[in-house]
Amino acid sequence: MIRVSFQGEKGAFSEDAVLAFFGEVEAVPCRSLADVFRAVTDGTTRFGVVPVENSQAGSINETYDLLLKCALNIFGEVKLEVNHCFMALPGETVDTIKKVYSHPQALAQCERFLAGMKVEIVPTYDTAGSAKLISEQKLQNCAAVASRRVAEIYGMDVLSENIQTIPGNYTRFFVISKENAERTDNSKTSLVFATENTPGALYHCLGAFANRGVNLTKLESRPSKDKPWEYVFYVDFEGHVEDTTCSQALAELQGHIRFLKILGSYPAASV
Amino acid sequence: MIRVSFQGEKGAFSEDAVLAFFGEVEAVPCRSLADVFRAVTDGTTRFGVVPVENSQAGSINETYDLLLKCALNIFGEVKLEVNHCFMALPGETVDTIKKVYSHPQALAQCERFLAGMKVEIVPTYDTAGSAKLISEQKLQNCAAVASRRVAEIYGMDVLSENIQTIPGNYTRFFVISKENAERTDNSKTSLVFATENTPGALYHCLGAFANRGVNLTKLESRPSKDKPWEYVFYVDFEGHVEDTTCSQALAELQGHIRFLKILGSYPAASV
Repeated sequence: MIRVSFQGEKGAFSEDAVLAFFGEVEAVPCRSLADVFRAVTDGTTRFGVVPVENSQAGSINETYDLLLKCALNIFGEVKLEVNHCFMALPGETVDTIKKVYSHPQALAQCERFLAGMKVEIVPTYDTAGSAKLISEQKLQNCAAVASRRVAEIYGMDVLSENIQTIPGNYTRFFVISKENAERTDNSKTSLVFATENTPGALYHCLGAFANRGVNLTKLESRPSKDKPWEYVFYVDFEGHVEDTTCSQALAELQGHIRFLKILGSYPAASV
Repeated sequence: MIRVSFQGEKGAFSEDAVLAFFGEVEAVPCRSLADVFRAVTDGTTRFGVVPVENSQAGSINETYDLLLKCALNIFGEVKLEVNHCFMALPGETVDTIKKVYSHPQALAQCERFLAGMKVEIVPTYDTAGSAKLISEQKLQNCAAVASRRVAEIYGMDVLSENIQTIPGNYTRFFVISKENAERTDNSKTSLVFATENTPGALYHCLGAFANRGVNLTKLESRPSKDKPWEYVFYVDFEGHVEDTTCSQALAELQGHIRFLKILGSYPAASV
């Protein structure tokens, strides 16, 4: 069976993304995002699935930094709507809860729901891990914020669902691999480049795309690490590197940059 | 005396930035970045100092989101080099340490130093707060990673300094206020805008600056919050909004955008 690595415990949101993209595969939990990249690089798993941005919180910087460092391709993308559930051991009700465990980002996304309760907030490393902790240690009067599947895995009751403050919260994931995805009519391409350190450099880089009608869907800057206050730029655009207009755009881009890495062309997610 | 709010405990790195910018003032600790903005907004403090980016880790997203939301000006900027120190109660040595407390970002920046020791790593919310904890509870065999001034405040010994893996690590701070800074010859300006949702929109926005030789020093994208996968862009450029070329650039920019907020013109930091 195909093996796919993801970061987190069994039940983690990234595992939902694995299932959404591949259907039935062997999902292999990893401790860190770096471990996911390592598993794919050394062949332990054929694919990995890593979060790249959340529509409220923004980009996952660590994923971007790892994409630059590792020799892997983006093979696909997945977009999933976040549905945070409030869960506890059977027998508890919303009124019996005194402590709530979850990852700080999940807790922040459910701020309004939690502010209405008189509870102690306990930040942890992991949403699924919080439910696991409560389940394994049989912690009374404790709840976790995690996804619905987590409740099933750890035998907990969902006391309330969709508790996030702002509806329409999506997370986007990349599927990474040593393999290239097949070319399709709705491909997207991701790349990272560093400009020459001259005024207007980024403007001229974007012109290579804009002047050919190639549509950018994302632009993200990250520190270059080589020198303070210099940056690398991550760009996603609609099209495949082998499309004529895209390859012409990339040829022009080469004239304006000091570094370029194509991260991959892959079928766009449908959401 | 002028009152200036910052996020963290006494001794926090942001307090170093307050002292570096203002000299002798009353530095007022706040629990969160939102509290710093609130203190300045409601007049509790005349200024606030907030971190905006680190030359290794990148932008502080929460600061960017608060700048968009709050009606305050950027009054100045400060750049400080990070110097992480390894500190413990008097009598300890590097060899007696079994547990190390600090903020996850500080721990990550000192990964190589810590990997060489057989210690348990304990992530906390705060570098200075970690030292305070060890000092107040007289914790034996424990160390904190924090700045040198923290050791002085909490009566701890610095066992090793400059323990960060990568040298040349700087943090940039904004001074925020209801007041405007005076116009100088080396001013910078920060603003945030949302483009029309058309191909090439960002390219045309940057052209307003590039075609006049106005130099961009930073471009950062953040989710728009209104709609998944739409973005707002934060731009820093060299010049003052009242400079002729800059005001012409802004007038042209208005034609390409659906939202613009000038965050302030302020004297550039010297580093």
